[in-house]
Amino acid sequence: MTRPLILNDDRLFPVEAGVRAVARRLYGLVKDLPIISPHGHTDPEWFATDASFGNATELLLAPDHYLYRMLYSQGIALEELGVPSKDGPSKADPREAWRVFAAHQHLFRGTPSAMWLAHVFSSVFGFEVALEASTADLYYDAINDKLATDVFRPRALFERFNIEALATTESPSDDLVHHRAIRASGWGGRVITAYRPDPVIDAEHEQFPEAMRRFAELSGQDVWSWKGYLAAHRIRRAAFAEMGATSTDHGHPTAATADLSASEAEALFKVIVSGAATPAQAELFRAQMLTEMAAMSLDDGLVMQIHPGSFRNHNARLFASHGRDKGADIPTGTDYVRALKPLLDRFGNETRLSVILFTLDETAYARELAPLAGHYPVLKLGPAWWFHDSPEGMRRFREQTTETAGFYNTVGFNDDTRAFLSIPARHDVARRVDCAFLARLVAEHRMAEDEAAELAVDLAYTLPKRAYKLDRAPASLAQSA
Amino acid sequence: MTRPLILNDDRLFPVEAGVRAVARRLYGLVKDLPIISPHGHTDPEWFATDASFGNATELLLAPDHYLYRMLYSQGIALEELGVPSKDGPSKADPREAWRVFAAHQHLFRGTPSAMWLAHVFSSVFGFEVALEASTADLYYDAINDKLATDVFRPRALFERFNIEALATTESPSDDLVHHRAIRASGWGGRVITAYRPDPVIDAEHEQFPEAMRRFAELSGQDVWSWKGYLAAHRIRRAAFAEMGATSTDHGHPTAATADLSASEAEALFKVIVSGAATPAQAELFRAQMLTEMAAMSLDDGLVMQIHPGSFRNHNARLFASHGRDKGADIPTGTDYVRALKPLLDRFGNETRLSVILFTLDETAYARELAPLAGHYPVLKLGPAWWFHDSPEGMRRFREQTTETAGFYNTVGFNDDTRAFLSIPARHDVARRVDCAFLARLVAEHRMAEDEAAELAVDLAYTLPKRAYKLDRAPASLAQSA
Amino acid sequence: MTRPLILNDDRLFPVEAGVRAVARRLYGLVKDLPIISPHGHTDPEWFATDASFGNATELLLAPDHYLYRMLYSQGIALEELGVPSKDGPSKADPREAWRVFAAHQHLFRGTPSAMWLAHVFSSVFGFEVALEASTADLYYDAINDKLATDVFRPRALFERFNIEALATTESPSDDLVHHRAIRASGWGGRVITAYRPDPVIDAEHEQFPEAMRRFAELSGQDVWSWKGYLAAHRIRRAAFAEMGATSTDHGHPTAATADLSASEAEALFKVIVSGAATPAQAELFRAQMLTEMAAMSLDDGLVMQIHPGSFRNHNARLFASHGRDKGADIPTGTDYVRALKPLLDRFGNETRLSVILFTLDETAYARELAPLAGHYPVLKLGPAWWFHDSPEGMRRFREQTTETAGFYNTVGFNDDTRAFLSIPARHDVARRVDCAFLARLVAEHRMAEDEAAELAVDLAYTLPKRAYKLDRAPASLAQSA
Repeated sequence: MTRPLILNDDRLFPVEAGVRAVARRLYGLVKDLPIISPHGHTDPEWFATDASFGNATELLLAPDHYLYRMLYSQGIALEELGVPSKDGPSKADPREAWRVFAAHQHLFRGTPSAMWLAHVFSSVFGFEVALEASTADLYYDAINDKLATDVFRPRALFERFNIEALATTESPSDDLVHHRAIRASGWGGRVITAYRPDPVIDAEHEQFPEAMRRFAELSGQDVWSWKGYLAAHRIRRAAFAEMGATSTDHGHPTAATADLSASEAEALFKVIVSGAATPAQAELFRAQMLTEMAAMSLDDGLVMQIHPGSFRNHNARLFASHGRDKGADIPTGTDYVRALKPLLDRFGNETRLSVILFTLDETAYARELAPLAGHYPVLKLGPAWWFHDSPEGMRRFREQTTETAGFYNTVGFNDDTRAFLSIPARHDVARRVDCAFLARLVAEHRMAEDEAAELAVDLAYTLPKRAYKLDRAPASLAQSA
Repeated sequence: MTRPLILNDDRLFPVEAGVRAVARRLYGLVKDLPIISPHGHTDPEWFATDASFGNATELLLAPDHYLYRMLYSQGIALEELGVPSKDGPSKADPREAWRVFAAHQHLFRGTPSAMWLAHVFSSVFGFEVALEASTADLYYDAINDKLATDVFRPRALFERFNIEALATTESPSDDLVHHRAIRASGWGGRVITAYRPDPVIDAEHEQFPEAMRRFAELSGQDVWSWKGYLAAHRIRRAAFAEMGATSTDHGHPTAATADLSASEAEALFKVIVSGAATPAQAELFRAQMLTEMAAMSLDDGLVMQIHPGSFRNHNARLFASHGRDKGADIPTGTDYVRALKPLLDRFGNETRLSVILFTLDETAYARELAPLAGHYPVLKLGPAWWFHDSPEGMRRFREQTTETAGFYNTVGFNDDTRAFLSIPARHDVARRVDCAFLARLVAEHRMAEDEAAELAVDLAYTLPKRAYKLDRAPASLAQSA
Repeated sequence: MTRPLILNDDRLFPVEAGVRAVARRLYGLVKDLPIISPHGHTDPEWFATDASFGNATELLLAPDHYLYRMLYSQGIALEELGVPSKDGPSKADPREAWRVFAAHQHLFRGTPSAMWLAHVFSSVFGFEVALEASTADLYYDAINDKLATDVFRPRALFERFNIEALATTESPSDDLVHHRAIRASGWGGRVITAYRPDPVIDAEHEQFPEAMRRFAELSGQDVWSWKGYLAAHRIRRAAFAEMGATSTDHGHPTAATADLSASEAEALFKVIVSGAATPAQAELFRAQMLTEMAAMSLDDGLVMQIHPGSFRNHNARLFASHGRDKGADIPTGTDYVRALKPLLDRFGNETRLSVILFTLDETAYARELAPLAGHYPVLKLGPAWWFHDSPEGMRRFREQTTETAGFYNTVGFNDDTRAFLSIPARHDVARRVDCAFLARLVAEHRMAEDEAAELAVDLAYTLPKRAYKLDRAPASLAQSA
């Protein structure tokens, strides 16, 4: 007998009837607001070509490290799951991979993946029975059938999902061909890029030399000289802004910043491009570049995002066989107070610059991040990130940041995902959790309901739009106007 | 249309009817108990002169870094808010500053400041509409009118607030003239001092040289010799005890303690007074002085408070323009286990000494502080402090310390404030949060209600009185008896 | 008037009626399941000799550091409580010690000790009034009378407690005489040992030289040579497995692991046995031995437990007078991400090896442990440990690990206790807290009730049995079959 798949209307709301009633009212105000997705990892090619997605495994399982890392942790080989390795695409039969996935759904109990999947299966595909071993084929066939139809092509889904703006993330060494194609196509969906220069800033990144060569090519600069390198950043940032970018993004191992003199910076850069940098020099250069990027942001207005604290590619054997982004990135304790001081000493009091901080170290919420954002004009707090982008994680974020930083030093939700079909699910979870939190404050008489109502809309829609400057006319429209 | 200002009787209580009923009963036992305020930063001059307070901005906004740091974080200049700088008093019109504050009340949603302000506005001033742009002038005028009346003078408020004892905090280089005046006045309010020697212990403090000169003057000792310096501490501690002090207080960057030999300590002191101390030497001297202070406390009975872990004056530019205590102090990760060992090795098993530990690093609650206080006779835990002096912060404190340290290794509430008018509000929040926590334990059958009732009174009244030795006759009364 | 002692059937369940109903239903499924106790510190001699326990103080107070450290923290000398010192047994009259304990029950309010004691007093001894000063003698006499009866002898209690399997913990230098006696006795209770080699691995352990001598004796190896030392481990592990051991256990100050070359390891070992090891060398050797133990586990199938992060014997004076395990072990911040990398680089992807991680540093739950266990096949998470083996601690464990690691990378409950009579109480608390957590997920529509029902049974029974390989025929039975 199959189990039913039901999305209860009250999911994630507090149980007590009075609080739940408030949560329902608040959620009613935000559930149909357009989605602002100012930071994520969807592939712009999807929207450029608008080609149909492949099969269920290829779309939903093989690219989603949240899913396959959990299966891997229980002894299932990545090869069985359709995950590509350095040797190329998986040789697994996608239907077989899907069956393995279906048979292990119990592993996701209590995880956000279970909630996102249920939402995708129910709302996007219309299933009424749960995925399990006995329904694996039913799911696999039905999903593949639907994906072949026009209403499941990327642009149609984008519109159905009511997405008002969606940012992808590209490297300076990306030529933005897909973004150009989207714009040239005349399609009205607002898909923009964001400037993520890690591959040309992190000398320890395995793609650094190749990324630098492309960076030179695309910018037309001698990027192996300090002057040329900085000029190349300015040129590429402008090119990204032309493709709608309103932000940069920096994924560093730590939050370290530095403010070297021009001559010190140049000398350090020489070591970096020589290929002989020590780990400490590579770290110092990343730190210095955050401050350089802040300086450029002050000029060109791009909002700066810092995503620090992930120990990337922790599993050495898996990195060798499968490469990066395979679910083996592990958070580490992250200091902000000392790390950010050089940047803050220079730009902390600027009201025209905005730096959005993220963390994988929840201990920083109440101790460091909320006090910093609750003081420095330049700082805002990004939402609960990655492992913490979950009901309990989001609740802890609000409980631990609000009392010191308030709500208005936060920037609403980022889905931060490459799993395009789960975007509505993720925003829905965020909206529900925020409404649940606000409802408790109302029910405990810590806030009036009219204030909570205004806040619910601000958190779901107004703040992300304002924080990422998406309330302004897109650059390309402004230019053509 | 203005919004109403209502203090709901059930605010901060759990929502479920059964738990709320228990919370109400417990709160009913403590709501009218006198206030014990054993640690804070009110100005003794208020009670010495009993002069009327100035205007709303000067009293409520300009001195309260909780408020203006939040406004500053959103791009409002301190100058606009009436906050004095190193150049002198702000040139802002206080009414205009008040209007800016009124127009930005939404920034405080979900913060304890919002709750404290509502309590002050409603209970102290009797407002029935909320503060917002449209009521800014109404508030400003009404507050100023009331402040001009006798019932709003400091001593009248002290009595109206039902304060049984209030400790201020002074440096050894303070002559305690206001405390002497209070005593000489014959007024019955128990306002006492506390000994905070940071300015003569912290060689990195910008007031160190001047504080040492005053220390010498007031003690009559050669404070630049190690012997004279220690003697001066003993003399000033005795003078503070005469002005009612029952405690010392130490606000250090870390919780480091040291136990050097007499000759090592003397050699270190020579470096300190030479002005040539390295940061490590300054740190070691602070560490050593905690142990010296503990030794003196064993003799004179002053309870010792340690408030470690704040990175003071983090905003270099603001420190240069406005000086210290401007909302730019940021918590840092704080170790206690290794840091306190030298002091504990010497005094940890003393039953006649009491050291009250505070933290800005909540990760230490369950991991370090509760296990330490749940073992060492000398240690007690101070309440949730500063950024954590808030409903969620206090709840975390109880949830994370009680199971290991119990309630009786804690010391009740400290308001720790310079915002005199908010003292009843702060104690009320603490009492409500404690009653809410106890009510949950009762409702989950983890404690009987008669036990919770006894605890509610202990936490609100008995424990702070006992922990700070305020249940003994004041020293000056004892001497005159 | 005495106070009643009541174990409410709904204790520890959420208060809201709907959630409580779910919790009751889930708990109904698990409350009578047999107890699996795969890690603990009971004394095998009890089950070998089946002799009657002594008096109430000797059985319940004097060996329980949870209890006497709390009394000690409030200024009561250990000597008064019947706790033995290095000079021998306490000279306190056990009835007087019991009276002191009875008179201070309020200190345990809100602690798990209070819940465990209530359960023992009510369920095991049948008391209907609470322990307090006025009932001290009533308790003392009644307990002693019962302990003298056959139904209160160890084996009878073991059976009454419905324990299916119970692991004790022994050092390699223990000859396992009691375990052999248990097996020889023909009694059917499954009491097994576990291999805890700390005394022969930790060169800083005060018993290291003596433990090494016994290790040599029992293994017949030259344990002062690297080869002989490793061989001795293999021999003793096999002997432990014969006495039913399915696991090893490692209680190190940190989680550091190392993977030295054979020659480096041998050179380090020479320094270790020379007695001249520096603290850094002792640490490196402990780190290396975790990896060596993992290699042996891959061969012999023993599950590996790592219990890191306790600063043992923090109170120097108490250690000198009373020795180890006297309530003065304090948790410290513990890194896992870098510490475990050498071991994981070698064995992280093994599906035939199982390493169960514990922590005293709750900040690692969501940040490090859940991401590690949610990726590496070799890792599982042990339950909330020691100071965190409490209702709030267990709740935090589930809230902070489940969303990333799921439930199936955890291993159910360990009571980890030497307080034999409290074992049912401790498992009952764990089952209730897990059911309460699951009930909330069901009531918030984050999981279906049938899933929660399956999970409740898995957490209480199936997972510990499987994780510790107790679902296989005991080794000795298998051999005789």
